[in-house]
Amino acid sequence: MNIDLNSDLGESLGAWRMGDDEAMLAIVSSANVACGFHAGDPTGILATLRAATAKGVTVGAHIAYPDLGGFGRRNMDVASEDLIADTIYQIGALKGLATAAGTRVSYVKPHGALYNTIAKDRRQAEAIIEGIRQIDSGLTLVALAGSPLLGWARAAGLTAVAEAFADRGYMPDGSLVSRREPGAVLHDPQEVAARMLRLVTEGTVPAIDGSAVRVEADSICVHGDSPGAVAMAREIRVLLERSGVAIRSFMASAGEKR
Amino acid sequence: MNIDLNSDLGESLGAWRMGDDEAMLAIVSSANVACGFHAGDPTGILATLRAATAKGVTVGAHIAYPDLGGFGRRNMDVASEDLIADTIYQIGALKGLATAAGTRVSYVKPHGALYNTIAKDRRQAEAIIEGIRQIDSGLTLVALAGSPLLGWARAAGLTAVAEAFADRGYMPDGSLVSRREPGAVLHDPQEVAARMLRLVTEGTVPAIDGSAVRVEADSICVHGDSPGAVAMAREIRVLLERSGVAIRSFMASAGEKR
Amino acid sequence: MNIDLNSDLGESLGAWRMGDDEAMLAIVSSANVACGFHAGDPTGILATLRAATAKGVTVGAHIAYPDLGGFGRRNMDVASEDLIADTIYQIGALKGLATAAGTRVSYVKPHGALYNTIAKDRRQAEAIIEGIRQIDSGLTLVALAGSPLLGWARAAGLTAVAEAFADRGYMPDGSLVSRREPGAVLHDPQEVAARMLRLVTEGTVPAIDGSAVRVEADSICVHGDSPGAVAMAREIRVLLERSGVAIRSFMASAGEKR
Amino acid sequence: MNIDLNSDLGESLGAWRMGDDEAMLAIVSSANVACGFHAGDPTGILATLRAATAKGVTVGAHIAYPDLGGFGRRNMDVASEDLIADTIYQIGALKGLATAAGTRVSYVKPHGALYNTIAKDRRQAEAIIEGIRQIDSGLTLVALAGSPLLGWARAAGLTAVAEAFADRGYMPDGSLVSRREPGAVLHDPQEVAARMLRLVTEGTVPAIDGSAVRVEADSICVHGDSPGAVAMAREIRVLLERSGVAIRSFMASAGEKR
Repeated sequence: MNIDLNSDLGESLGAWRMGDDEAMLAIVSSANVACGFHAGDPTGILATLRAATAKGVTVGAHIAYPDLGGFGRRNMDVASEDLIADTIYQIGALKGLATAAGTRVSYVKPHGALYNTIAKDRRQAEAIIEGIRQIDSGLTLVALAGSPLLGWARAAGLTAVAEAFADRGYMPDGSLVSRREPGAVLHDPQEVAARMLRLVTEGTVPAIDGSAVRVEADSICVHGDSPGAVAMAREIRVLLERSGVAIRSFMASAGEKR
Repeated sequence: MNIDLNSDLGESLGAWRMGDDEAMLAIVSSANVACGFHAGDPTGILATLRAATAKGVTVGAHIAYPDLGGFGRRNMDVASEDLIADTIYQIGALKGLATAAGTRVSYVKPHGALYNTIAKDRRQAEAIIEGIRQIDSGLTLVALAGSPLLGWARAAGLTAVAEAFADRGYMPDGSLVSRREPGAVLHDPQEVAARMLRLVTEGTVPAIDGSAVRVEADSICVHGDSPGAVAMAREIRVLLERSGVAIRSFMASAGEKR
Repeated sequence: MNIDLNSDLGESLGAWRMGDDEAMLAIVSSANVACGFHAGDPTGILATLRAATAKGVTVGAHIAYPDLGGFGRRNMDVASEDLIADTIYQIGALKGLATAAGTRVSYVKPHGALYNTIAKDRRQAEAIIEGIRQIDSGLTLVALAGSPLLGWARAAGLTAVAEAFADRGYMPDGSLVSRREPGAVLHDPQEVAARMLRLVTEGTVPAIDGSAVRVEADSICVHGDSPGAVAMAREIRVLLERSGVAIRSFMASAGEKR
Repeated sequence: MNIDLNSDLGESLGAWRMGDDEAMLAIVSSANVACGFHAGDPTGILATLRAATAKGVTVGAHIAYPDLGGFGRRNMDVASEDLIADTIYQIGALKGLATAAGTRVSYVKPHGALYNTIAKDRRQAEAIIEGIRQIDSGLTLVALAGSPLLGWARAAGLTAVAEAFADRGYMPDGSLVSRREPGAVLHDPQEVAARMLRLVTEGTVPAIDGSAVRVEADSICVHGDSPGAVAMAREIRVLLERSGVAIRSFMASAGEKR
């Protein structure tokens, strides 16, 4: 039994530090690396990619809206042709840096507002899918478990992988509890780790009303931008491994299945 | 007998238009395409690359300092590790867009202040060379005819191609007349065309003092950002072709020699 | 009888030109000057302000979302505290440049997507109003004729001025014809000028269904970013003046009324 | 006896934190507040200005080259007319935010590469001086003690104040030890505090060769972008106050002298 752990990395910008990439790369199996649109500059991204290569961590392109000031967290009504070209530009830039770092880009995970929007907005989703296909149809798309995006991507010929969020509460229907509601974000590392163990072994997590909700995910997103977040990610990994669950990239699993 | 004509393209930015890429792509054999650091946005660059593909024009990465406000024309004292990563990022982004457009990036030509600086500043030159080698050592570097950069690039294992400037005056030693001096820029299309014909057929151009100066170049840079510039470029092409000189990419020639 | 003509100016950016500010400043009585968020750089804005001073044209701050790549035309879900601070920053910067140019900022007209959004989105509207009040409650807000924004601004103590669009079609209820529908944009200078004369003299324009729709406006927005647009603006001015309507800033009129 | 302590603040950017502005505002008498060109966004700058107002700290504009990626630390060959307009734009924006925060901008201190360049490069220095004069000739310029810039600014009619650097080594001629040499940066809080006490009481600091070098300064720059830096700043303030030196803005002193 195995599962992928992914985290957002490469988010420093010039003189500004964010997160502890070295610490997280010792925990996760997949690194969602910023591409310069919501975070990241070429020098910092390259350093993160080199560290990922050294630790054997799989690399994905963490593409975003062009919004450094808002960290890619603000919805933007971007035209489809711009979304397509922005997607290709970001993935291309990361591919170039990955080549220099001795690794390669294996998947794409949209960031922030773009992630949430394309989970259910078909127009923007199709543009991102089209951008990925135009540069490299072999790239896997990582999307929210249960979202229509997974089906749209597969219908277009892409491999799509579902992910769960370690520290987020779930509604009985499998959607995430809104950040405006209580119970949206979980803070207890042990509780979070236990929930993720149950997710991997039983395919369910406790919903906010106590019922068991089915969540089919091949990857778990863990956050790493604070000391507490690193500790929580480590707790998840330790509990999973102690319970016999191997942490490894969904790419490795995909390879085996083929 | 043949020669390459290259021009700077893909320099529009969002709502702002610059140059007539369609017109220039009918004249030149090589397109120096902006990569987003001094000019160009993903959507516009992709459109230019598609037009270049349709017309069979060879594509190069027109890399630059990160300075949209100054159009890459201001000297910047960028650290070597940043120059290396910026070079890889820009070339990678253009490679991605070129893939989507059905073409590929064949060469690199630095832009503006970066072009002038690395022609003779060894530290910055070595950083650009290193960046190119880290992403793709098969890329050709286009540099100022007579500049030490050509030797530095070749010593590092890159193919380097020398270029002349169609509308610039030359000093007796082969350097360009400074833009602060009279005679720096030539405006008469017929005179410019005649000079370029002499460059191709005899390997010399008239210097500002009337003497013949030796300029060994495999490519001629023509500008295209004004109606007059397009007309001048066309004049050069027409005179060269009428005189039996074929206009084609230095990449094509290189292919033949191999 | 008099009316204000306003136009968007100062939209060049570095090496990229946009519009013919000199030509438009000879036609309009109010200049909506870009503040650097959707267009404009300090040097170009300053030049436009100097030209406005020389011609006695009233200056307004053309504030926008922070989106150079999208020219401020893309909706962005910006938090209220960011909208407030962005508004103050832009107006402050323009006030500084206006001081240097020997003039002052008299009004604020939001641009593009921000203009359309706050015409009816109360949260964003209140943020813009609050930003204006925090820097200078003496500034007038220019808003779409008939929009709720006019009332919200006045309720908050600001002076608000309604504007009509010279080249846009109107629905029978006084709203603009959507740009996705036929008849959204009018192209015949004479027709446009005749409509605006009727607007000023009778307070109505012909709606798309032929009915007369009441539009109460103290200012008319004319576009100036193409040669045809300048000609249309001139046509409007000439017809209005020939018909006895003086072109002058709503600030001048406000002054008289007091 | 009294002296001013100044520090660089307002340098956070969107999601990226930098420095502990609250802690530093309890120590210093003058806040050099970023204006968005090398660091700072409107929302963060406004928060810092409000905190400065609450603590009665004098505010200065920390203007810079337009270089977020390089944090304003890279030399840029900016044309004089652009330097003038960039200076006005940045000061204007900060003035606007200061008005909203209930305070005002009292001085200008250039940042990073711009600071070092104009200390001795006359062309760029004159442009900055001209920009300040065009927006507000009542603003004081803070410059490196001993630099020709002080004289140039005073000759142009500006008030100029000299500053020393608490944690930097000095050459026997009063210039700073280059950052490439040993002894450039001092790390022992007690040593640094003792040096600054001597600077204030005797007008000298020990040079790197042990000799006493005369440094006439009305302000001392302390850094605050790390926990250690805050502790050092506090050490300086505590020692100075215990020794009978009051910490207060040079503006307050100027007021008294008048």
